[in-house]
Amino acid sequence: MMTLLGTQINSARLKNDFEELGQIGETSEGGVSRLALSNEDLEARTWFAGRIEDAGLLFRDDEVGNLSGILRCENPNAKTLLMGSHLDTVPNGGKYNGTVGVLAGLECLRTIKELGVSLPFHLEVINFTDDEGCWQSFFGSMGLTGTLDESHINDVRQDNGGFRAALFRAGIYPHRFRLARRDPETIAGYLELHVEQSDRLYRSNTDIGVVTGIVGRTTCNFTFYGEATHAATTRRERRRDALHGAAVFITRMYALVEEFPNGIFNCGNVVVKPGAFNVIPAQASLRVECRHQDETILKTMEQRMVQLAKTCAEEFNLTLETEVVLHRPVARMNEAFIRMIEQLCDTMQYSHQRMVSLAGHDAQILSPFTPTAMIFIPSADGISQTPAEYTEWEYIEKGATLLLNTLLHLAGITP
Amino acid sequence: MMTLLGTQINSARLKNDFEELGQIGETSEGGVSRLALSNEDLEARTWFAGRIEDAGLLFRDDEVGNLSGILRCENPNAKTLLMGSHLDTVPNGGKYNGTVGVLAGLECLRTIKELGVSLPFHLEVINFTDDEGCWQSFFGSMGLTGTLDESHINDVRQDNGGFRAALFRAGIYPHRFRLARRDPETIAGYLELHVEQSDRLYRSNTDIGVVTGIVGRTTCNFTFYGEATHAATTRRERRRDALHGAAVFITRMYALVEEFPNGIFNCGNVVVKPGAFNVIPAQASLRVECRHQDETILKTMEQRMVQLAKTCAEEFNLTLETEVVLHRPVARMNEAFIRMIEQLCDTMQYSHQRMVSLAGHDAQILSPFTPTAMIFIPSADGISQTPAEYTEWEYIEKGATLLLNTLLHLAGITP
Repeated sequence: MMTLLGTQINSARLKNDFEELGQIGETSEGGVSRLALSNEDLEARTWFAGRIEDAGLLFRDDEVGNLSGILRCENPNAKTLLMGSHLDTVPNGGKYNGTVGVLAGLECLRTIKELGVSLPFHLEVINFTDDEGCWQSFFGSMGLTGTLDESHINDVRQDNGGFRAALFRAGIYPHRFRLARRDPETIAGYLELHVEQSDRLYRSNTDIGVVTGIVGRTTCNFTFYGEATHAATTRRERRRDALHGAAVFITRMYALVEEFPNGIFNCGNVVVKPGAFNVIPAQASLRVECRHQDETILKTMEQRMVQLAKTCAEEFNLTLETEVVLHRPVARMNEAFIRMIEQLCDTMQYSHQRMVSLAGHDAQILSPFTPTAMIFIPSADGISQTPAEYTEWEYIEKGATLLLNTLLHLAGITP
Repeated sequence: MMTLLGTQINSARLKNDFEELGQIGETSEGGVSRLALSNEDLEARTWFAGRIEDAGLLFRDDEVGNLSGILRCENPNAKTLLMGSHLDTVPNGGKYNGTVGVLAGLECLRTIKELGVSLPFHLEVINFTDDEGCWQSFFGSMGLTGTLDESHINDVRQDNGGFRAALFRAGIYPHRFRLARRDPETIAGYLELHVEQSDRLYRSNTDIGVVTGIVGRTTCNFTFYGEATHAATTRRERRRDALHGAAVFITRMYALVEEFPNGIFNCGNVVVKPGAFNVIPAQASLRVECRHQDETILKTMEQRMVQLAKTCAEEFNLTLETEVVLHRPVARMNEAFIRMIEQLCDTMQYSHQRMVSLAGHDAQILSPFTPTAMIFIPSADGISQTPAEYTEWEYIEKGATLLLNTLLHLAGITP
């Protein structure tokens, strides 16, 4: 077995890429807006393609817009080890989220190419389309794993074709999305480096988070229906106030979630109709989500939440409509990968801890498809998805180096 | 003193008017949409002008769009007794609200004209512009009483001139609104017949509500500001959730209002930003109102409400912006008018009870300006502002007859 002690990525080159990319879609607050399929996202793809070309790597474009750089090994029938993340962002998001995983993957390919070592697999760095869900969360990774279906493409936002138009403009033809599916037999695994987004590593001063799993998530719409009568002339006991019922539901749900120590609940939006100050709200539509790292507990939370909504509706003499918009099961990372990464951290003297990812990542879509690992590096103060998102360069260097050594280890080359 | 025992309005003619007018802006649910200054409102005005013309009455148009029919008495220097209400409605509102007062007033003028009796005042039936506040609540009555100012015309809904355009289209020139002001010395009083909108008369099987006052009202906007961080990666104790704070405020405010037996609170709308299911709400804007029949208690309610909003903001680590949009003081009806109407009811054997109006009416704008009275008739089941709004014809007949006898009594002609 070959040994490459102290193998390093080219930190200056990686940093230069990071800085160049950070200018694409940069906002006045110092964040970035590269919404999937927007002008800025397309510009970032073009820039990424330029870097692939500069590095003398091969391109790969697929039918859902994923863009890859490939370093082929000598054996044409070898499997492919995937590394990557996403270059798209939320509106006025941070420069680290997603970006770090794609650029570190690219840097690994360049480093391996320069080292001239022979690997037993092809290496592929991939930028997944729309991880953030501007149109459809994990569109690219779902396309690659064959888990996309028509429901994800047709009228997802009831926006009369905006998504389709955006896809067409990016050269993605919706009727061909099934062709993006890869055969899992051809894939050796998937490695994703990402900023943690929470503050567990930051607070404990730890270099590396070794992700064991990704929380499952259920997103629901609850609509409470009451009666839009005159706010002043309707007696209190005859009020059928949809917003009052919804407010009590929100209040009690945040109390209920205290019973689930690792549970997450969020009510992100309420839309009220008719919305006049002097009319009792006839309709209050809530967009909520629950997350948990344990699938059974997540199901329990979901049931308790639906039951609570029903109770609130009854209490306020309202009717209730419940729609489960999305259920993403809890994802498990590959146990052998986890242990391997921990051992590498020990060898390289990087402090590390196991953790569950609280946010969703393309890795959760890849994990049932191919052995998958995620490496987290600290987010300063746990801040994420805002211009204030920040990670010390030292950690990006460490993360990229760990990614490189992980793939070398998978290739049978131990540091 | 002259006596006209058993003087009656022409019920069939009034009913015919009521049915004709109910077709203007009629909705598929059987309600009416005659939003102020809309096509339908303009059509209703044209129809009303036609009835004034048919009756051989004089027209009066003023600079805020109020439209009147006038029956002049012999003395050109006599004062004018105003009667009326409004023909505009809320979207898909009822056919009775406002309409009854205008049409009964018109019927009184026609009856007096036919009786050929000589009155010591001019009689004027008036349709006030935009009672319902599609653009500016009580626009017409505020114009007539000289309480309108620029703030009511300029950018009231931040809609970039939609109100001005609507005014111009209706032939109302905003720069001339001050000319609509009448001299209170020229006005003998104001009488408004209206459906009750609550269910006090209906439940107690009473013919007539003699209004003693109209609740005062304070409308506020509260905006809670938190931080739009990731719903899943932000630790619970670091959440600064504007909507959670707002929901607790709403819940507690409805509990607080229980301490004020005649107090009314309504939160009619919440607008949440950014509004994504997986982002903690950074902003929740509430549109609320308080009403009470006692000005001092109303002030107390308002203070307690503002204090509660502050407490909720502090508890959830939010900042708070409070804007008082409107304060309408409690209105008192003329005590002599109240007693006179009660006596007339007794004479005519109409059951009656004193009550406070829980909804706002043009009468509250007129009451500090001229002696004002309001007569309520029952709303079936207390339903109002919806297509289901209904009042038995018998009550409309009684209300119009009482209105006629009130003006005769004011003229010194007792039944």
